[in-house]
Amino acid sequence: MSRTVYLNGEYLPEGEAKVSIFDRGFLFGDGAYEVVPVMDGLMVDVEPFLVRLENSLSELQIDWPCSKEEYLEMHRQLIDRNDLSEGMIYSQVTRGMVPQRSFGFPEDTPTTLMAFTQVVRHRDNPLAESGIKVAIVDDIRWKRRDIKSIALLAQCLAKQAANVKGGYEGWMVEDGFVTEGTSSSAYIVKDGVLITRPLSNLILAGIRRKLLLKLAAEHQIRIEERPFTIKEALEADEALMSAASCSVLPVVEIDGQMIGDGKPGKVYRQLRALYLDNARENAVIKVAG
Amino acid sequence: MSRTVYLNGEYLPEGEAKVSIFDRGFLFGDGAYEVVPVMDGLMVDVEPFLVRLENSLSELQIDWPCSKEEYLEMHRQLIDRNDLSEGMIYSQVTRGMVPQRSFGFPEDTPTTLMAFTQVVRHRDNPLAESGIKVAIVDDIRWKRRDIKSIALLAQCLAKQAANVKGGYEGWMVEDGFVTEGTSSSAYIVKDGVLITRPLSNLILAGIRRKLLLKLAAEHQIRIEERPFTIKEALEADEALMSAASCSVLPVVEIDGQMIGDGKPGKVYRQLRALYLDNARENAVIKVAG
Repeated sequence: MSRTVYLNGEYLPEGEAKVSIFDRGFLFGDGAYEVVPVMDGLMVDVEPFLVRLENSLSELQIDWPCSKEEYLEMHRQLIDRNDLSEGMIYSQVTRGMVPQRSFGFPEDTPTTLMAFTQVVRHRDNPLAESGIKVAIVDDIRWKRRDIKSIALLAQCLAKQAANVKGGYEGWMVEDGFVTEGTSSSAYIVKDGVLITRPLSNLILAGIRRKLLLKLAAEHQIRIEERPFTIKEALEADEALMSAASCSVLPVVEIDGQMIGDGKPGKVYRQLRALYLDNARENAVIKVAG
Repeated sequence: MSRTVYLNGEYLPEGEAKVSIFDRGFLFGDGAYEVVPVMDGLMVDVEPFLVRLENSLSELQIDWPCSKEEYLEMHRQLIDRNDLSEGMIYSQVTRGMVPQRSFGFPEDTPTTLMAFTQVVRHRDNPLAESGIKVAIVDDIRWKRRDIKSIALLAQCLAKQAANVKGGYEGWMVEDGFVTEGTSSSAYIVKDGVLITRPLSNLILAGIRRKLLLKLAAEHQIRIEERPFTIKEALEADEALMSAASCSVLPVVEIDGQMIGDGKPGKVYRQLRALYLDNARENAVIKVAG
């Protein structure tokens, strides 16, 4: 069955959703995006995603394409029309279509808004038990990684390089320190302490990351927000990753080297359980406008 | 009159040229582009543009969308169908449309090729006499600026920041040194010496840059390929920029400060004259396949 997707006010079969070759998203990667997880047919923890999109758009000086209520309604419609139980909703806003290609911002150009669903197994993901392999790759991205922009070529190259090295995910490294995964936040556990890089312009402010740190703090798991090296990662007791598209997954191997005993660790298991419980409690149909 | 543009084998009115929202160009900025200047209805110096596109595609591991002969034929058709006398042809290759959004490269996916014309006044550009103003902006781009990719968000932000500061172009600065313009190569002249940054992964290998350096060498203009600071730029006798979209233009002001006597300089005038003569001689309809 073909998905129903959203484009500029219309719900369309996915094959019919097309944008102009003069859309600045297509010409320049000039836009921002979000990915909201869906469980039990409900959006999970949606408010922070809206806040982050607001930040991205604001940094890029792109106007909201519609009201927040309409934005959420679009999400609800997509869940409904695609009968989505577990997965995610991807949405993207670009600076819109321009008559002439020119780097500077156009005036009074309507933004482009599109969104679609993708099925993901959040709960019964076999990787949650088997664990995933990570490959170390260079972080060659720009300096505003805090903006969730669609100019993702560096991440695509990094993920592909990781895949070629046998990694399910790539952990990007800059100046000897892990920044983050190509499409996920990165954590290690040493002596019971959960370690992850602090927020800055060098990483994306992961919404799952924020939630996991909150849950960890509430359950007496010690947290250190600091950069960690590849060596520390290889010598860690546990490693894990999180993202809207995969919830929380254990990392059992980095660059061919086993992490801990090569099995999902204790802190990971506790965090994943807390995460899934929380998702159940915080899934919503409606949020305050 | 509506332009005729090219998209995946078809010549279409510009309003009808549309790509899927699942094109990786639109989702990720996953593609490369070129801009070939046109003068007197002929492509100028086209071979090096093909070589650079080849390099970009090779670095991104994207296949050529067609043979080089077909690529050139597309250019000739666009000139012809749009009756283009002076301007440029923009062409873009992306990794194509994917059924699911995922950073890693898809297998066996046809690439997307699109191209369009844009009118530019190369010869009778009033800016060639008045000169242009440059604003200094931060260079926050990724580390593979030698790849002419469509992930140009950093350049868009830089150009916009320059425009807001009153600059026609922005010169990007990293670690105190000018890297290049947001969409052009940057040069200064001091004591008769033409100074421009050497090629590396930190700048794009400008085709106009290469030609200007060749013309300068042939006409006894001394060249130094080395990074220069903002201070050097402000104290230079002359400053200039080059790009396929604007040929060669004089920079008469940087960040509100007059360069030299605030008028287009001697070395610039000589280079522009040599450039236009050369363009006339090297404009081609056909090139070796």
